[in-house]
Parts: sequence; C-alpha cells; structure tokens
Amino acid sequence: MTTTMTTAANPGPVAPSTPAHSTLHPLGHDAVTLTGGFLADWQRTNREGTIPHAVAQLEASGALDNLRRITGEHEGEFVGFWFADSDVYKTLEAIGWEAGRSDVGDLMPFVESTIDLLARAQDDDGYLNSHFQVDRPERELLELRWSHELYCLGHLLQAGVAWSRSIGRLDLLQIGLRFAELVEQRFGEGGVDMVDGHPEIETALVEVFRETDDERWLRLARRFVDLRGRGLLGEDAMGPQYYQDHQPVREVRDATGHAVRQLYLAAGVADVVAETGDPELLEALERLWSSVHERKQYVTGGLGSRHRDEAFGDAYELPPDRAYAETCAAIANLHWNWRMLLLTGHGRHADEMERGLYNAIAVSTAVGGCAFTYANPLHLRSDAAGGGENAPTRRQPWFRCACCPPNLARLVASLHDYVATTTDDGLQLHLFADATIALPGGGTATVRTDYPWDGRVEIAFDEPFTGELQLRRPGWARDAAVTVDGRDGRADARDGYLVIDGSEHPLSRVALELPMEPEVIRPHPRIDAVRGCVAIARGPVLYAIEQADLPDGVLSDDVVVPEAPEVRLAGVDPVLGQRLLVAGARVRGGHRHELYRSSPSARSDAGYAPSSSAFGLIAVPYHRWGNRAQGGMRVWLPTR
Amino acid sequence: MTTTMTTAANPGPVAPSTPAHSTLHPLGHDAVTLTGGFLADWQRTNREGTIPHAVAQLEASGALDNLRRITGEHEGEFVGFWFADSDVYKTLEAIGWEAGRSDVGDLMPFVESTIDLLARAQDDDGYLNSHFQVDRPERELLELRWSHELYCLGHLLQAGVAWSRSIGRLDLLQIGLRFAELVEQRFGEGGVDMVDGHPEIETALVEVFRETDDERWLRLARRFVDLRGRGLLGEDAMGPQYYQDHQPVREVRDATGHAVRQLYLAAGVADVVAETGDPELLEALERLWSSVHERKQYVTGGLGSRHRDEAFGDAYELPPDRAYAETCAAIANLHWNWRMLLLTGHGRHADEMERGLYNAIAVSTAVGGCAFTYANPLHLRSDAAGGGENAPTRRQPWFRCACCPPNLARLVASLHDYVATTTDDGLQLHLFADATIALPGGGTATVRTDYPWDGRVEIAFDEPFTGELQLRRPGWARDAAVTVDGRDGRADARDGYLVIDGSEHPLSRVALELPMEPEVIRPHPRIDAVRGCVAIARGPVLYAIEQADLPDGVLSDDVVVPEAPEVRLAGVDPVLGQRLLVAGARVRGGHRHELYRSSPSARSDAGYAPSSSAFGLIAVPYHRWGNRAQGGMRVWLPTR
Repeated sequence: MTTTMTTAANPGPVAPSTPAHSTLHPLGHDAVTLTGGFLADWQRTNREGTIPHAVAQLEASGALDNLRRITGEHEGEFVGFWFADSDVYKTLEAIGWEAGRSDVGDLMPFVESTIDLLARAQDDDGYLNSHFQVDRPERELLELRWSHELYCLGHLLQAGVAWSRSIGRLDLLQIGLRFAELVEQRFGEGGVDMVDGHPEIETALVEVFRETDDERWLRLARRFVDLRGRGLLGEDAMGPQYYQDHQPVREVRDATGHAVRQLYLAAGVADVVAETGDPELLEALERLWSSVHERKQYVTGGLGSRHRDEAFGDAYELPPDRAYAETCAAIANLHWNWRMLLLTGHGRHADEMERGLYNAIAVSTAVGGCAFTYANPLHLRSDAAGGGENAPTRRQPWFRCACCPPNLARLVASLHDYVATTTDDGLQLHLFADATIALPGGGTATVRTDYPWDGRVEIAFDEPFTGELQLRRPGWARDAAVTVDGRDGRADARDGYLVIDGSEHPLSRVALELPMEPEVIRPHPRIDAVRGCVAIARGPVLYAIEQADLPDGVLSDDVVVPEAPEVRLAGVDPVLGQRLLVAGARVRGGHRHELYRSSPSARSDAGYAPSSSAFGLIAVPYHRWGNRAQGGMRVWLPTR
Repeated sequence: MTTTMTTAANPGPVAPSTPAHSTLHPLGHDAVTLTGGFLADWQRTNREGTIPHAVAQLEASGALDNLRRITGEHEGEFVGFWFADSDVYKTLEAIGWEAGRSDVGDLMPFVESTIDLLARAQDDDGYLNSHFQVDRPERELLELRWSHELYCLGHLLQAGVAWSRSIGRLDLLQIGLRFAELVEQRFGEGGVDMVDGHPEIETALVEVFRETDDERWLRLARRFVDLRGRGLLGEDAMGPQYYQDHQPVREVRDATGHAVRQLYLAAGVADVVAETGDPELLEALERLWSSVHERKQYVTGGLGSRHRDEAFGDAYELPPDRAYAETCAAIANLHWNWRMLLLTGHGRHADEMERGLYNAIAVSTAVGGCAFTYANPLHLRSDAAGGGENAPTRRQPWFRCACCPPNLARLVASLHDYVATTTDDGLQLHLFADATIALPGGGTATVRTDYPWDGRVEIAFDEPFTGELQLRRPGWARDAAVTVDGRDGRADARDGYLVIDGSEHPLSRVALELPMEPEVIRPHPRIDAVRGCVAIARGPVLYAIEQADLPDGVLSDDVVVPEAPEVRLAGVDPVLGQRLLVAGARVRGGHRHELYRSSPSARSDAGYAPSSSAFGLIAVPYHRWGNRAQGGMRVWLPTR
C-alpha cells in the first residue's frame, strides 16, 4: 500500500497550504495521541494543572477585569502591562488545542464568558485592546513601537485559529478577523508603513491565510516582514536592534536584540517563506539560524544572554549565571524550528526542538504545573541574592509580565502535533514518545518507548507500511541501531534521519535503539564563561547538581569533577526522574580572602588543591532542579 | 626636630575636624605639588584637556540652558536627566580644586557667569533645581526616590566647599547653604522622614559641617544615614536593594544594588563615623568593605557586575565581558577608601585607591583627556556589537547621562591631596609620584620616582626628619627594600607600611625599592567567569592584549598563553607606556560549528590544539587600551 499524504483536514499549529513550499506535512491535530511517558505526563499536567491555574490567574491578575472595563462591567485602573490581553488570548488558544484532544467541559464557562466578553468589548470598527480603548482611544494604532496592539491581535488570531482547527468553532476567529480587517485597511498596501514593536502578527496572519484561504492576510504578513528593519519604529533608548528594526530581514546575518522578538519574527518569516518560496528570505533565515544555534544558544536550548533588554548577546557570550533564557524564547525557538523542519525536512531542526523541550522549556514549570520560571539560568550560586521579578530564584505562581505561563499552556496542549509528519510516501518520527499515530492513508502506527529515560523506541504498524519510514537520529547520538521485524535493519542516513524503505518489504515492527550512556559535554572554546568546565547529559536530558544532594558543608560552587568523569546511573527518583552519579568529585580545599593573587611560579593552586577524598556526586535532570530545598545549582562543573 | 601635626589650614577633599576619630590627617590642598610623571601628567591633561572640554560640553549638552530656563534666559524643553545640574556642580568643583594649584584665569568667565546664574536662579526659599523649578514646582522635594534633588544639592555643596577650601571664595557655598537650610527644615529632626534615592548628600553635609563648624549639618547627615534601609523610598520595579533601602546601614553585611549609590553611601557613612566615632557604623563599614573588596571587585578596581540596574552582582559574579564597572563607581570607591584610610591608617585602603587609579579610573579617559568611557569592561570580543549609550566600545566625548566625565575632572584636580598624610609625629606616603611635600612642621620632602614604570622611590628631606616615616608597601609587592641615607635601612612592617623611625637618626634621604617583575595573576577559584585564565600585571598596572598588536589573522579571542608564561619588558611606547611581551603564546587551532560537543573520552581538544608555533604576545597597560584601531581586548588570557 502506498500512503498518499495531503495536508491534514484539521491540522494543529502551522498548516502549510497545499501549494506551499513545504518538505514535510503536519498530521492532523487528532492524528497523534500521546499514550504515556514523559510527554503524555506533561500534557496531562498541563491540562489538569497549568490550564485551570492560568484561568484562575487571569481573574486574579486583573487581565479579565481589564477587558471588563471596556464593557463597563469593571471600574478601576488598567492592571499590568499594555499587552495583558495576550495572556487571555494565549489561554484561550491553549484550551482551543486542548478541546481537540480532551474533554474541556469544566473550562467552557470561562471560554464562553470570555468570548462573549470579547465580542461585546470589540468596537464597531473591529478594534479591540483593553488599554487603549479605555485609557487612550485617541492613540489607537499610533504607537506601535511599544503598544503591542498587533502583537495582541496576533495572539487573538492564533487563538481563533486553534478553535477553528481543533473543533471547527469560528466565533473567536471572527472576532480576530474583524480587528484584522481594520489593521489591514490601516497598514495594508497603500496604507501606513509601520510594523509592531513586538513581532507575532506575522506568523498569525499566515496562519489566518491558511485558515481562510484569503491572500490578503499573506500579503499583509509579507508586507510587515518587508517593512521591518527600515527604522520605521524610530529611535529610542533601546536602540533599533532591540526591535530587529536596524536592518532589513533579507540582509540579516546575526541574531540581535530582544530574544523573544527576534525568534517570533523568525517564525513569521519562515511562514512567509513556506507560502511564497522566497529564496532570499530563506537564505536570511538560514544565516539567522546559524547565528542563533551555532553562536548564541545555551546548551539547555535557552536563548538570550542579557537581562538588560532581555537580549541576545555577542557571539559566544553565554554566561550560565546571568543567562536570561526566557521561557518564551525557548518556546519561540521551538515554533521557529518546527517551521524550518517542515520547510527543509532537516533533522537538526527537530534536534533543537527536542533540546528545548527536555531542558529550557521543561525546566520552566514546577512539578504540578502551577509555578513557573521566567528566566532560566544554568547556574545559581549558593548565596545568590535573587534576581528581581523576571528572574527570581524560585518558580512563581504568576508574573506581572505573565507572557510565559500561558505560552507554555498553548504549546503543551498541542505537543502531540510535533511528534510526526508525513510526505507523499513517508512517515517521519521526530519526537519519541508512547503514542498512537493515525496515518493519513489509513492504518495506525503505535510507538512504545520509555524515552528519554530509555533509548529503545518501537514502532508497530497495524497494517504493513509500504512507504519510507524516517526515524530521527539525534545529533547527540553517536550511533543508533535499527531492527526491522526483529532483524537488523537496513537504514540509510539522510538529513539527520535513519530512513527505512518499506516499499519492497512492508514494515510491521521497527525498533530504534539509541545509545543512552551518560555523556560528558564540552563547550566551544570561545565560550569564555564556562571555560574549564564540563556538563553531563544523557540522551536529550541535560543534568545539573543541586545543593540538596550534596554532603553537609559542601557548597555546590566548591565541587570539582575530573576532566573525564565516569558517570553512571544512580536510580530513578519518582519526582526527579533518572539520577546520575558522577564519580571522583572532590571539594575545593582551603579558602582565602584575596580575590586575585599574583604568583611568579607555575601554578598557584596552593590552598586550593581539592580535598583528598573523592565522593560520588549526584546529578539530577536540569529540568527538575528547584523542586526541593532552596540552594545552589550548577549545570557546568569545573574540572579543576 | 619633632613635627607637630594638626589639621591643615586649607585642606583638600575630606577634612576631619580637630576632634574627629581620624588616625591620619590630610595635608593642606597646597601642601603637595606633583612635579612630574604619571600623576602629574594626568593632572595636566585634566587641566588642559578635560576641564575646558567639560565646560564646553555643559553648554553643548544643554545643562547650562536648563538653569537658564529658570531665569527666563532660555526657552525650550529640559534636556537630559533630572540630575543634569550635578554635571555643572561637579565641573565647578573641579575648577575649585584646580584654583588652589594652577592659574584658572581662562575658566573664570565660565565660573563667574555660572555662579551668577545659580544665584539668580535660586528661589527665595533657597530651592534650586532646574527640572522641578520650571516643569513641576508643585512636586519639589516630594519625589526623592528618583528626583536626585538632594544628590544635586550634595554636589553643589561639595563644589562650594572646594572653592572655600582652595581659595577662600564663599559665594558658591553660600548658595548651597541656603538650599541646605530649606532641606534641613523639611527633613531635619522632627521633619519628614525621607532619604534621597541616590546617596551623596550625606558626605557633602559632613564636609559642610567641617567647613562651617555648624553641628546641624552633621546631625542631618547622620539622620539620613540612620533613615536609610527602612523602606522609606517605597516599592518599585528596581527593588529596595537598588537604593540600599532594604536594610538599615548598621545591619548591612553585603554590598547590593546600584554600585555608585552603594559606594557614595559608604563614603558618607565613613564621614559620619569619622566625626561621631560610632563603632557600630564602623563595623558595618568594615563588613561592607570585605563584601566589596573580597567578593565583588574586578581586578581593575572596577565595581558593578550588571548592566541591568548598574548593580553589584552576587559574590564572585565578575564577568569580564559584561563588567559594568562604571567610572563613577571606581571614583566613589577611591573616595570611600580615602576616608577609610584616614579613619584606620591601614594601607589596604591606599592599595585600593592605587588599584583604581592606575586601572579602572585611568582607563576611562582617552589620551588627550577629551573622550571617556562610562562602563569599563575587561573583555571586548573581536566581533562585539557594541553596548548602548552607557557601554559603547569606544570612548565618547560626552554622555546624555554625563555623571562620569566631570566626576573624573574633580578627582584629578585634587589628585595631589591623596599622596600623603600626617600624624602627630609622622609622615605617610601613600601614592608614589614625583612631588614636593610641604611638611606641617616646616621643611619640605621631595619625592623622585618614575613610578609606576619603575619601582624606585626616593624621598629627600631638606631638613632632617625626626618623625616616623611610613612608606606604603603595596599588597602586590612581595618584597621591598629600604635604604636610609645610602645604607640598608631598618624598617618595621605595620598595617601595610614600612615604618622608618627618624627619632634617633634623623632622616635625610630614604629610598624605597619595590619589585617590578611582571606578575601573573590568578583569580579566586570561585570567580567562574575567568576560570582557566591568567592576567598580567606589573606593579600596580594591569595589562591587556589588544587586537592592534596581534599578527594578521589572529583574533584576540583565539590566543592561548602558557599556565606560567614568561613575561618580560618590551619597550616603552610614548602613548601606551611600558609594554610587555608574553612568551609562548599560541593560537587556538581549528574551528567547529557546534557550540557543544559530547565526548566519552578524556579530553576533547581535537581540532583545538594550539598551533605549533609560539609567538611573543604584546600586552599594553589596560588603562591605555582603545586608543588605537578598533578591535578586541582581553585582560584575562586563557591558558588552554
């Protein structure tokens, strides 16, 4: 049987149009069911913990009251940042995706009342923004540098798209479209040349084009991309790089400025490329991808090295302690890489999605799903004083700038959409998780694995598969073995995938075995901030040491490990997952007061030789740190 | 002859009162003349370059026009930050100190017209602030968290004190005192409990007490110190640490928040301690000193690790690339250490003054004295993108926030005041420079040296000195030899000084010989950001490598030096000073794209072994970097 694949009828996030320049095609939003393991647990925690928590926080934070000010149902000051409406929209989007995979009955009172509120709050001309409508109507759509009006509209549209795609409910999308019509009249061809200070509308408009088949939205998205980088936002203290307004997108060579803005923009550009095939924009995206992933990314998948301006730093400027690595930046990077994966079919994009998922994104949510990080450092000193609202040393229930928690909610509600894709005659497995996958041509593939704790991934087809099965071979995997129907399988390596051809011998059972020995990771020598350190990983999961696991009196900042430490499994903790034991750790001996010591002789380790007795150092998955007692944490471990 | 020392008749900055708790006494502002060498050259550059440049910039920047708005001589918007008046005051202070040592005739038109302008601009009740008087008179003295009104008053008072002390001119001080009277009525005992968001008024008030002998000013200074740390400034996004308002000064254990605010506060507290002898406050100062100098200071003497909030970081958080190290913080640290030196007589305080002077402070001015840095990093990557207004990669003629250049001007105009002090029977030499020193008991000491390029310091007394001569033995000096009248001298070591007793054999010629071999400096192992690196110093001067000295094709970030490099002199450059040659440097070979590489085996330097051919690496004084072609710079050099 040859499976003929087309664009799914009810796709999930990102659904390239039929004529789009897309190498891979998403499956439908209802095609994949996560049935167990890490990702399914996360999706359940999101459904049971994070989403209801977010709904409650929208009320508690005043975000809903902001909208009720428009209808006169609430009196009082506007609360929070100007973009607080987007918290509401992202939560609606999360429930929208969720509605396609679980019973959301308990959340429907919130959904119904909120959509009703938005319909009543919307102005006759379609305008909708709770800050400007009440406090400064005369400034509507005149201050796009900081207003976030199109950013909020983008999230409204994405929420509408989610409800439309998952269950065919259109009212929320229609509210968004009414506002979009106004924006198109104002800023479309022949209108005002301007862009929003915070990209997001671009990707939303392409998704709306895909949903409505109305070319106007694609044209407007492309126009916003083309207008960016021409100084339209004007000068301010942040500088034009902050808004990616310093250089036309086609000429970009380097990721700059506010990381979330840069990455949302990249995702929107990728959507435009998918629908237009613009080769020049694709080249710009590839350059930007190299800048981000080969020079400016944390080993966790975190992005953004500077607290000041929440910005990318210079190439190789990657301090673990002052990593900003905002949760939203890692999510945006996943969104961008998913689009790049669909465009190019190259596994490196799925590798980056996986890196973020199991590390920089997963770390941002507490066990239970109701407390969050905003910044995601790789190092917390034993005596750290904390870091202000966006970078506290403990996860928080919510934030005044609450962009991250509902962004998590909408991502995780659609997590299953990122597991697999199809081509005309093929199935690509990108993320490894217990799942059933309904194939477009009929039949079901069942995936069984204990990934990421175990490297064996078994795929069973209920009807023998005659197409090309592509299994991602992660960049971290030095080797990988495939068995087909119980025998060593022949698999070609291509673009980061092992390719198993079922055309001659249809496939029933395929198993992938990935090596799961703990790995010692060394940084590029240009990364000054972690020179002389190693990190530990196992599969896609990066590890950290935490104060809670150290012997009494030993501080996490005084531990030294061997240059090539032996690392072995140390048992599974029910909360933290698989722990590791790093053999041969020692404690840095002696202390002195002087910060700097001059010495004419070779080494000046006097007083700093590690203690004579070695001990086994427990390391836990980085994404679970901070779920126990307060204390220091390190990903990068000094080797001397 | 026994020299009996008292408080100088016309002292320089910081003049403890006769009954003050002061171990050392400053000499008079006219007692020391710098006659040649590094410090004298700097003072001349300041007089001929920086000060006239500052006067011109006050006009060009609009700072003077701001004041002319009050009198109606200028129409237009207020320009710059609310504290722009302080730029004017600091420049007046610089000229005030200068008037005590050089002919300032060419600057007097500016001085006369500006003092006249201030007198006319001042309100009848004494109030004077160019922003509030014109734009928001109804908010005067009501917004001290951000208004900087008392900060500006502090600088006005210090300018008045300078003119009073150096030439006895009182009109500027009287303007300040009229405003101070108003502030005392409002905020003195029984008045409003409040402090200024930016400390500075505290030290100014103690100096005014010393100048006027009016206890009210000391009481008000002490009151501001006691009120700080009680949350009076209220909550905002910066957090109370930013303003040092989170904890009463007496309880402080750790330097926190905005570095310049913390250090100005410390200087003011030290002044209060000197005049009150408060032992609890002194203990708090000693704890704060340890926090700063043993855990939070750059090897350059720079202070402040974070661009965000211009703040101290956690202990050992000292990234060289993102060092903020504002010029004003290093100057404030010198002010504080001078006060601590007078209080305690301990040489470690003079050591820190010296560290800052030859490094973090000197680096901030271009050769010529007319361009400045604001932030002073220890590392600039070859391809750094620049760092915004306060942290550009090149020195700038002026800044919108122009606190640093006139702060430099007032310091350097009084640099000779920090060279030496007296006790009842002693003379202490803290800074080594060609100078003549008029001794309080009569007679003159003449110092001859080529310090910091040479370690020999010769002191000749025209009348044999019968007191105790103390010569600072810098902390960096492993050994030091003294000769007295040509013979090996007997010198006791005490509190960082070599003490030579002239009571039995009066002293005519004393020579100090300090070792000037280049030193390899290693950081405390807790300083993560420079692990595996060494720095090079010679005497008090720290060195850096600059792109301009590297072979074609070799980037400053790819250089590796031996663990224990041999360093030798490489000749004097007329602009840069003594250069050094670091033998055995190599270029890191090979490059790869992956930022992170996992490896099961021991070392993974494959492709990164340094090139086989070693070369001699030129290092130049850090304080002179950036005076040639743009390019990378490093203080800390990787050893592998």
